Amino acid sequence: METLEVIRNRCSLKEQISPREIEPGILYTVLDAARYAASSRNHQPWRFVVVQGQPAVQALVDAAVTGTNAVIRNAPVVIAVCARPQDDSISNGREYYLFDTGMAVANLLLAATDFGLVTHPMAGFDEAALKRHLHIPEDVRVLMITPLAYPASESYDEAARERLSQRSRKAFEEVVFFNRWGEIQPEMDAIRA
Amino acid sequence: METLEVIRNRCSLKEQISPREIEPGILYTVLDAARYAASSRNHQPWRFVVVQGQPAVQALVDAAVTGTNAVIRNAPVVIAVCARPQDDSISNGREYYLFDTGMAVANLLLAATDFGLVTHPMAGFDEAALKRHLHIPEDVRVLMITPLAYPASESYDEAARERLSQRSRKAFEEVVFFNRWGEIQPEMDAIRA
Repeated sequence: METLEVIRNRCSLKEQISPREIEPGILYTVLDAARYAASSRNHQPWRFVVVQGQPAVQALVDAAVTGTNAVIRNAPVVIAVCARPQDDSISNGREYYLFDTGMAVANLLLAATDFGLVTHPMAGFDEAALKRHLHIPEDVRVLMITPLAYPASESYDEAARERLSQRSRKAFEEVVFFNRWGEIQPEMDAIRA
Repeated sequence: METLEVIRNRCSLKEQISPREIEPGILYTVLDAARYAASSRNHQPWRFVVVQGQPAVQALVDAAVTGTNAVIRNAPVVIAVCARPQDDSISNGREYYLFDTGMAVANLLLAATDFGLVTHPMAGFDEAALKRHLHIPEDVRVLMITPLAYPASESYDEAARERLSQRSRKAFEEVVFFNRWGEIQPEMDAIRA
């Protein structure tokens, strides 16, 4: 699919998960996309632990995920996104393991969207329990988890359209300034390419 | 362009910058792409200060960018990527303003690549000087700067091909584990979709 279309159509839809298995080649390609991301001094701090198969996913959820996020128990794959802070630059207090892993995850989410897969990045989980469960070393942080799944077929398109139509984003003028902080260019959205 | 192609072809090429101006509609669309990113509890912490026009870009570089990064002085546009830490979640010490802004920046870099534009994310700049120069508030961090430019035409394709062919990335098996930390699935790259 066209890049801009994928960027605009990506959405988080944990409520729309089919237990259908994901083909190994598609799983590989989605994970592989993350590896192409830029990173500070090419440190590539990102690591992914792929939990696959319903029994393994359900055991993970029982161990470390509660509340509404537990709906991902039906996914065929859950990816735990990890990084070790000391594997990347720290510049003037800015910890690039977070920034760089965020860039890699965006690639992964877009590649998944391109294959028509559902994702839903979540920061809400019990990090200590998840690390114990997946044997993740003490000095590695778990930054995010996401299910990776085919959509629950009949209702997905409608749910995605509804989600996208209700999606709330700050206005362009709230987040983009010109030449100095706070300076806006009005009506720039009229000239979208 | 197809999403996977853009993800795989994005590269950092500050040496290949044309001073040619960027059309406002393309500039808008590249910045707009960042707004569609996911973020923790939809906090959308990202802010962008777009410095445009050679005099403004050169003044910025003179104020805050030294060494090899100063080559971006020829760009028609430099984007300063900013975020306020307290605008986003902090979960168990993980500061999501960095992670979420990373996701937004990946969207921006991919949209730029889709338009054939050169980018080069840089963490190396004098943050205090840059903030003074752009009137950025004390509590806002500048996470990254990137030029946005058309490629210096004749040599670009060759330079990009060379850069991509020499690009060093950790092997899939070094960054992707299955079901527990350190457990690999050998030869998974044979099944790329």
